Amino acid sequence: MKFQDMTKTQMAELKKNLLSQYQAFKAKGLKLDMSRGKPGAKQLDLSLSLLHFENIENDYMKGPDYRNYGLLEGIDEFRNLYAEILGYDPSDILVFGNSSLNVMYDYISQCVTHGSGGEPWLLQKDVKFICPVPGYDRHFAILEHFGIKMLNVPMKNDGPDMDLIEEHVKDPSVKGIFCVPQYSNPDGITYNADVVERLSRLKPAADDFRIIWDNAYNVHHLGEEQDSLPSILQECSKHGNQDLPIEILSTSKITFPGAGVALLAASKNNIEAIKKRMSIQTIGHDKLNQLRHANFIGDARGLKEHMKKHAEILAPKFELVLGILDEELSEFGIAQWNEPRGGYFISLNTMEGCAKRTVQLCKEAGATLTPAGATFPYGKDPKDSNIRLAPTFPPLEELGKAMELFCICVKLAALEKLMA
Amino acid sequence: MKFQDMTKTQMAELKKNLLSQYQAFKAKGLKLDMSRGKPGAKQLDLSLSLLHFENIENDYMKGPDYRNYGLLEGIDEFRNLYAEILGYDPSDILVFGNSSLNVMYDYISQCVTHGSGGEPWLLQKDVKFICPVPGYDRHFAILEHFGIKMLNVPMKNDGPDMDLIEEHVKDPSVKGIFCVPQYSNPDGITYNADVVERLSRLKPAADDFRIIWDNAYNVHHLGEEQDSLPSILQECSKHGNQDLPIEILSTSKITFPGAGVALLAASKNNIEAIKKRMSIQTIGHDKLNQLRHANFIGDARGLKEHMKKHAEILAPKFELVLGILDEELSEFGIAQWNEPRGGYFISLNTMEGCAKRTVQLCKEAGATLTPAGATFPYGKDPKDSNIRLAPTFPPLEELGKAMELFCICVKLAALEKLMA
Repeated sequence: MKFQDMTKTQMAELKKNLLSQYQAFKAKGLKLDMSRGKPGAKQLDLSLSLLHFENIENDYMKGPDYRNYGLLEGIDEFRNLYAEILGYDPSDILVFGNSSLNVMYDYISQCVTHGSGGEPWLLQKDVKFICPVPGYDRHFAILEHFGIKMLNVPMKNDGPDMDLIEEHVKDPSVKGIFCVPQYSNPDGITYNADVVERLSRLKPAADDFRIIWDNAYNVHHLGEEQDSLPSILQECSKHGNQDLPIEILSTSKITFPGAGVALLAASKNNIEAIKKRMSIQTIGHDKLNQLRHANFIGDARGLKEHMKKHAEILAPKFELVLGILDEELSEFGIAQWNEPRGGYFISLNTMEGCAKRTVQLCKEAGATLTPAGATFPYGKDPKDSNIRLAPTFPPLEELGKAMELFCICVKLAALEKLMA
Repeated sequence: MKFQDMTKTQMAELKKNLLSQYQAFKAKGLKLDMSRGKPGAKQLDLSLSLLHFENIENDYMKGPDYRNYGLLEGIDEFRNLYAEILGYDPSDILVFGNSSLNVMYDYISQCVTHGSGGEPWLLQKDVKFICPVPGYDRHFAILEHFGIKMLNVPMKNDGPDMDLIEEHVKDPSVKGIFCVPQYSNPDGITYNADVVERLSRLKPAADDFRIIWDNAYNVHHLGEEQDSLPSILQECSKHGNQDLPIEILSTSKITFPGAGVALLAASKNNIEAIKKRMSIQTIGHDKLNQLRHANFIGDARGLKEHMKKHAEILAPKFELVLGILDEELSEFGIAQWNEPRGGYFISLNTMEGCAKRTVQLCKEAGATLTPAGATFPYGKDPKDSNIRLAPTFPPLEELGKAMELFCICVKLAALEKLMA
């Protein structure tokens, strides 16, 4: 029965019942964390042999000594590996340190101080960015840090609202868009071919407009049914827009989040502009770690096999969460959620005005979720509705407990709202 | 006999003789590189066991899982190690990725976009930095990249000319100074206690003035006679100037230049401002590499022992270079050079107007030196006199050949000048 169809008495009785379940949870003194998209320890164990690099002495001296300074653009082995994986030319790729976030931050910072073809953004009065919402809080944090104004564009089932984006880019102060195009954070939506094509055909009024294509989950499928995403670089090139996209990837959720390798793919012009800045910034990134990774992953097939092992660990967690949501919430008409085929999140929308209260109730009973609002620029969800569930880190048993508690809290928050 | 005391005939005869030696070198088709301060392969071999990290599985799980996201400020083991080495508190230290240059670039970039207490430097019309000369070309490149005007201050035997610095800081547009205070690049000079004290007592008109203290060679002695340097943090604190210095170090020339660990030490205020930026920029640096290094180095005594092994490899190279310079050049009054007790360079001054020509002559005969002028802002040595010799990378035999050729070129360039 939908909550909205209940009588006041029925609601009061249900609330009493839920409160007693909630108090029982609270009494257990749990400490559960579903706040961030972190791999679990078992996933990290999959890459342990990366640390024991038997042949490194033979490998690092083949050409230039990878232990020493140099090789700004990264080692050939790693560039070749990702060229194969992505279907690009190795020269389209630059390899960095351990953090793709850092690569994006540095790129935006470069645009702020030196522009991306035009004036430095800091010297342009009013600079704006398009942000598909809900989205990734750390993207929004970069833009806020640099004082770039964020424009919300709603996500649809096939990607962001392209009609709205095509309107926005008529404004020359709109300088770019942040995208997580495959298994989006948090919705788990993959942009379909039409959306990617419309993005690649954009003719922004700002000629220094950039599509920041954070392809963080490009091989992070959960099962056999997998989404596929056209290459933004190749699509944009077809329309003479090759300088629009900056594609960013990393091995963070392939090997170790704390000790992986990030990379970037872009047009010749963009690669040159970025290398020019890099040549001032560093003498080169950690080439031994690049070599560890190239040797460990091997080739595109090796990566596929490795990602299957991740999926075997992750799929049961997603199934558990979706099962509990279905069982505990589907009949009441108080929440909707996605069923992603990959990525790290499940995005749930409560009744309007209930997200903050739900997260608060969870927290008070010992389960930490991503703060409500975090999936929107400035932390402001206009409907106070979206909650990002991150099921990857906790072991299955803890996850089950956390989800049971979560569903109680969703219902309690909804009842509070309806009975107010 | 000094060149200046020779007759034209004597000069002509000497030149003829030197040219025939030069042509003989040229005929050999050598490829020698003395351009950059890179450790040689034997030095890198000293740290090979770093790559075989037997206990890493036991170590990384003691507390937080170092394979995963997090720990923005670096792991305790590494902060504690450097706290012991430097005599600081671990909380004074932030640990980064593999490049200290990147740490300095990022700090200046942060000042450009967000200021260091005042307005962003990009929005302040006229921003200047003091540059002791000769100095490190990559420092100058950072300042030039951000459009920060550089003011040359000559190095004396005990550090930069403090009278001039005390004058410059009266100008509120002068925002900082870049220093390599121990075994300076390229002179190998260590700032003496009086210089450090005067720096720490500065009262700059700009209240967002910063001393970038690139302590790259803090433990890089060549023998038993070692320079020592007071702590800039401690000295500045004595005078209420604790927010002036940003001290930067790395293991680049301790372990692997391409895969080491960089760090920064600063006041509480500065650490907080930097951490605030870092929290937007990354989720954390490579903690497994920090752990490798902490385990490999062990403690202050372990570092000392390790650096002795570097010195055993490097000292003969410096002795060879200094011996050849002494034998080939000292009697002619056409060049002066330093005899450093540590660091990576020997700085030589030719007769005025002869540095570029000397480097060019070397290049044409197959020996690459650091470009003349590189040790000055904008690549402009006003006297065209300074040449940075980097003797660390080539094996001894090659180094000897390169230095013989170099001395021939110094003499030829001087004769060309005197006979013009």
